[in-house]
Amino acid sequence: MDYDRFISIERMEQATESLLENGRKVGADSWQQRVKNQSPQCEFGESGTCCRICSMGPCRITPKSPRGICGCDVHGIVGRNYVRFTAGGAAAHSDHGRQIMHTLYETKEGGAYQIKDPDKLKRIADEWGVESEGKDIYDLAHEMAYKGLLEYGKPFGEQLFAQRAPEHTRELWEKAEIMPRAIDREIATSMHMTHMGNSSLAEALIRQSLRTGLCDGWGGSMMGTEFSDVMFGTPKPLDTTANIGVMERDMVNIVVHGHDPSVSEMVVFYANDPEMIALAKSYGAKGINVVGVCCTGNEVAMRQGIPMAGNFLAQENIVLTGACEAVVVDVQCIFPALGPLSKCFHTKFITTSPIARMPDSEFIEFHEATAAANGKAIVKMAVENYKNRDWDLLNIPDLKTEARVGYSVEAIKKCLDGVTNSHVDELGTLKPLRDVVKAGVIRGAVAMVGCNNPKVRPDTAHIQLMKKLIANDIIVIVSGCSAQAAAKAGLMSLEAKELCGEGLKRVCELVGIPPILHMGSCVDISRMMVLASDLSKDWGVNISQVPVVGCAPEWMSEKAVSIGNYVISTGIDTFLGVDPYTKGSSEVTELLQGEQGVKDWVEACFTVETDIEKMGDMMIQRIEDKRAALCI
Amino acid sequence: MDYDRFISIERMEQATESLLENGRKVGADSWQQRVKNQSPQCEFGESGTCCRICSMGPCRITPKSPRGICGCDVHGIVGRNYVRFTAGGAAAHSDHGRQIMHTLYETKEGGAYQIKDPDKLKRIADEWGVESEGKDIYDLAHEMAYKGLLEYGKPFGEQLFAQRAPEHTRELWEKAEIMPRAIDREIATSMHMTHMGNSSLAEALIRQSLRTGLCDGWGGSMMGTEFSDVMFGTPKPLDTTANIGVMERDMVNIVVHGHDPSVSEMVVFYANDPEMIALAKSYGAKGINVVGVCCTGNEVAMRQGIPMAGNFLAQENIVLTGACEAVVVDVQCIFPALGPLSKCFHTKFITTSPIARMPDSEFIEFHEATAAANGKAIVKMAVENYKNRDWDLLNIPDLKTEARVGYSVEAIKKCLDGVTNSHVDELGTLKPLRDVVKAGVIRGAVAMVGCNNPKVRPDTAHIQLMKKLIANDIIVIVSGCSAQAAAKAGLMSLEAKELCGEGLKRVCELVGIPPILHMGSCVDISRMMVLASDLSKDWGVNISQVPVVGCAPEWMSEKAVSIGNYVISTGIDTFLGVDPYTKGSSEVTELLQGEQGVKDWVEACFTVETDIEKMGDMMIQRIEDKRAALCI
Repeated sequence: MDYDRFISIERMEQATESLLENGRKVGADSWQQRVKNQSPQCEFGESGTCCRICSMGPCRITPKSPRGICGCDVHGIVGRNYVRFTAGGAAAHSDHGRQIMHTLYETKEGGAYQIKDPDKLKRIADEWGVESEGKDIYDLAHEMAYKGLLEYGKPFGEQLFAQRAPEHTRELWEKAEIMPRAIDREIATSMHMTHMGNSSLAEALIRQSLRTGLCDGWGGSMMGTEFSDVMFGTPKPLDTTANIGVMERDMVNIVVHGHDPSVSEMVVFYANDPEMIALAKSYGAKGINVVGVCCTGNEVAMRQGIPMAGNFLAQENIVLTGACEAVVVDVQCIFPALGPLSKCFHTKFITTSPIARMPDSEFIEFHEATAAANGKAIVKMAVENYKNRDWDLLNIPDLKTEARVGYSVEAIKKCLDGVTNSHVDELGTLKPLRDVVKAGVIRGAVAMVGCNNPKVRPDTAHIQLMKKLIANDIIVIVSGCSAQAAAKAGLMSLEAKELCGEGLKRVCELVGIPPILHMGSCVDISRMMVLASDLSKDWGVNISQVPVVGCAPEWMSEKAVSIGNYVISTGIDTFLGVDPYTKGSSEVTELLQGEQGVKDWVEACFTVETDIEKMGDMMIQRIEDKRAALCI
Repeated sequence: MDYDRFISIERMEQATESLLENGRKVGADSWQQRVKNQSPQCEFGESGTCCRICSMGPCRITPKSPRGICGCDVHGIVGRNYVRFTAGGAAAHSDHGRQIMHTLYETKEGGAYQIKDPDKLKRIADEWGVESEGKDIYDLAHEMAYKGLLEYGKPFGEQLFAQRAPEHTRELWEKAEIMPRAIDREIATSMHMTHMGNSSLAEALIRQSLRTGLCDGWGGSMMGTEFSDVMFGTPKPLDTTANIGVMERDMVNIVVHGHDPSVSEMVVFYANDPEMIALAKSYGAKGINVVGVCCTGNEVAMRQGIPMAGNFLAQENIVLTGACEAVVVDVQCIFPALGPLSKCFHTKFITTSPIARMPDSEFIEFHEATAAANGKAIVKMAVENYKNRDWDLLNIPDLKTEARVGYSVEAIKKCLDGVTNSHVDELGTLKPLRDVVKAGVIRGAVAMVGCNNPKVRPDTAHIQLMKKLIANDIIVIVSGCSAQAAAKAGLMSLEAKELCGEGLKRVCELVGIPPILHMGSCVDISRMMVLASDLSKDWGVNISQVPVVGCAPEWMSEKAVSIGNYVISTGIDTFLGVDPYTKGSSEVTELLQGEQGVKDWVEACFTVETDIEKMGDMMIQRIEDKRAALCI
């Protein structure tokens, strides 16, 4: 199959339609059908005005019943729901980081998990005040793992990584009383504050939401990112492919899906094991093809060049090809629907984490200490399943693009070093980026992130906005499902420069980058925070002054709200395409989106806008406003 | 005013009616009215079949839409809601314990907070493996506080207090994989597991609910109880009064309400301050009268003999008397309605905790380090408010009973020592209790706990069940709002022996106790766990074999579900009068109430029964069944 330069939404939708047709042959359910079944959705739930926090309820706010039974008004109810939404997201993201720290604790010389980037480990040790000089790298790893695990529960003090933020940002956090303490404590505090008969003051609830978001973005998520790099390697630019056509007709296809690379790294390792490949061949396959979905897909794409088969709302499509021997999942964003769906095909649906137990799955519990054996058993199960494929059901749509991925902050600085005159300027900084932005060659940047959501035509907002932004000389940094939307459409190829304005196009050519930079999975939004922070320091202005905005046009998960909270807390205005169940309260809406709440505390706020064209215009305008304020 | 021997529900309801009439004069809202406004309640919410965990939703399960958009079925949805309900409760209870540990950390010789029970501190230090010999008691307190705070976030290991449970119980926990780890971690894990795309397997969700409950009951709550005793004194039997008539016409009335004794102990201290009393007299009052509501009320009743004005659904009544100068609240179960209600009267509604911020309140933030000044400022504000009282609105119903309270486990053992022949038998055990139960003089015990809930005629279930049980020679141990229901009705007086069967009556007379033993506030249900555990050890049988059951006939808060989970996990069958939003799933209902789930794992389960008479019969039958199984 040839690669497509660019793939339109319409072609992707046609492919999905043909896959759904495949599903109908075997009586498969689909999210498209379930959305229809669930319509219309509850308006109380959608506006955040329903409370189920105690069993006197449920209570719903209407003009006739303006308060719940306890007397809580609509602002308290919406605010509490918002805190809990944040807490769910922060818990998920941070627990991913905790898992990584437990994996780090199990690293050993020659073991299943090793230290691939010792320099990065030492750099972080230095930041954390841990002596690394003369220490065995694994002793250091274990010491750092323990210290990192204590970030979840230390009785006193703030998040260590919060020290990375610019001084001005830290001052804002102190003043707003949102400096994040131990991660799990912020989550427990959020749950306590929202328990019946505690906080109903919207302002207090929103402050706690920000603090809980910060313990994710500048705590658990950042540990997840940084120590994944330490163990699995810090991403560097590399080429891969994307879209459903990465499934291979004549190979054993193993799909890794979820978020935590600890499992997928083992699957990739054993998919390359000659013994397993020989086994696959013995069943008539040409080999073993691992492809990724969602953020696990991003993780192994960034580090191993594993093709990206699809993002959140494409996860059922993978099984519908009839070519999927196994979907191996770790945690988060996994449709429980994959259970019954896999039963309609020969696909093995393999769950691996005690955190994500699902009906109709094969559970192979993955332990750090037995990772090698677990990984091998999973690959073997997939290979042995090749013989059960129903060839009549095979349907791999002919869609495949090229993508260059792997833009960690370190990698971006390295790219910029390539255009720095080392005789005159310092290497390893973001100053060249600042200079092209100051010069107006690039107008600014948009950090585009987040999921898909059936409330938005899938991938359309991501792709449409990206095209509009790059055409306007705005560089786009992406992660998560947004990154995969870009890759699926071909926007992450070097050739996407053709869609750019003149300025951005020149930069892409000069630096040798695509206009959409893949920064990783959703925990890797912490990379964007570090990037913004470093840029602010190199520029000498506050983060909120830099012409950068954030955007999650198709978000669906609680993590996205946690992320939104830490992104605005970091000083970056953020645009959402889906309302976070808050529209029922004018007070909460004003606090999150107006001038008097978070904007006043942390110099940035949310904008909720469902009209994508309008959102694009607003982001461009916001960037231009920031430029004007800087007189550039 | 004379004391009433017993007060009927009907008289209490008449009093409430007259208070509501008082409220109507000033346009006050009431929970009774809000219940009407909120009717009918949402059936999806009530059955647990609505999911708002991601923003693709809300999704609701119906025959037409048997799965959410992600594909989660009704069992996954109900199960996830149940875990989150538990997590909210465990977070609240445990955070109370954390607050106590922070207070312990601030204790000092001559300070606002001191160590009143050094022996208990040393006993616990010994349990925890901390050397106390030759150590300054405050150094020991600070060391223990730090160690206790680490129980919330230690990276490895299980709850220290879990060691207190009988070996058999611990084995069950190990086998069921519910041994509680760090407290906040279990809460964060619960939130992560229930995040979109994680666990939808009901069994896994229920196991996590039990583990999260255990980190509350044998973790945070138990620390809250034990270290409150260390600082404020271990309760001993003492006499006090109860019901709305404890408000004094000619005194400054300060109501303490909430849960954490750190605040109320200071208020009580300064209410006895000669300077404050003189100030009150200068305003024409005869003095300062502190009364308690909800669990803060229980805390100061147990240790200071402060009268108990009312429980959860009586909290508005206090303000409606027109005699309340200040309602001083800390955390949990505080009606936000007290804000607007207090504005209809002269009452100051004073919030003190960052955890419980409410509109229409005066916020005086209470810090451990500045507790004395904060406490004095609060009392002063109340005293100065006496002059603003509207005497035309004064209405203190003439209801007041006597109650003997203060039955810590230590106090119960001490009472039993009084009937032990010290020449023959060991002192300080529960063996005399075992012996009267074995002999059938007492048939068994019911631990009755929990809140009020408008879904049950307030206090009726508590009182009706208690009367039935003691008439059947079943001793009742109580805490929380259940305890106050008993006290309000006069069932906690020594004279209540008249309502008992012959056996229990004889025991009451012999030991000198009421048939309803007040064990404290809702965190003090941990006392009941220690009691059950010690009884099992002294008896030589498993906890599940002892003829004891638990009961929360009018519960409403998430804490009650967390409690329920740890009570059944401890081996005690538990009867609920309100369904915990689970009836929508046959699988979850079977796991919680049937033979194949928790009953199989931990030898106890829930029974949900809304017919109170029937519930009473079932509890008696369960106790008789356990007796029969023991051949006694």
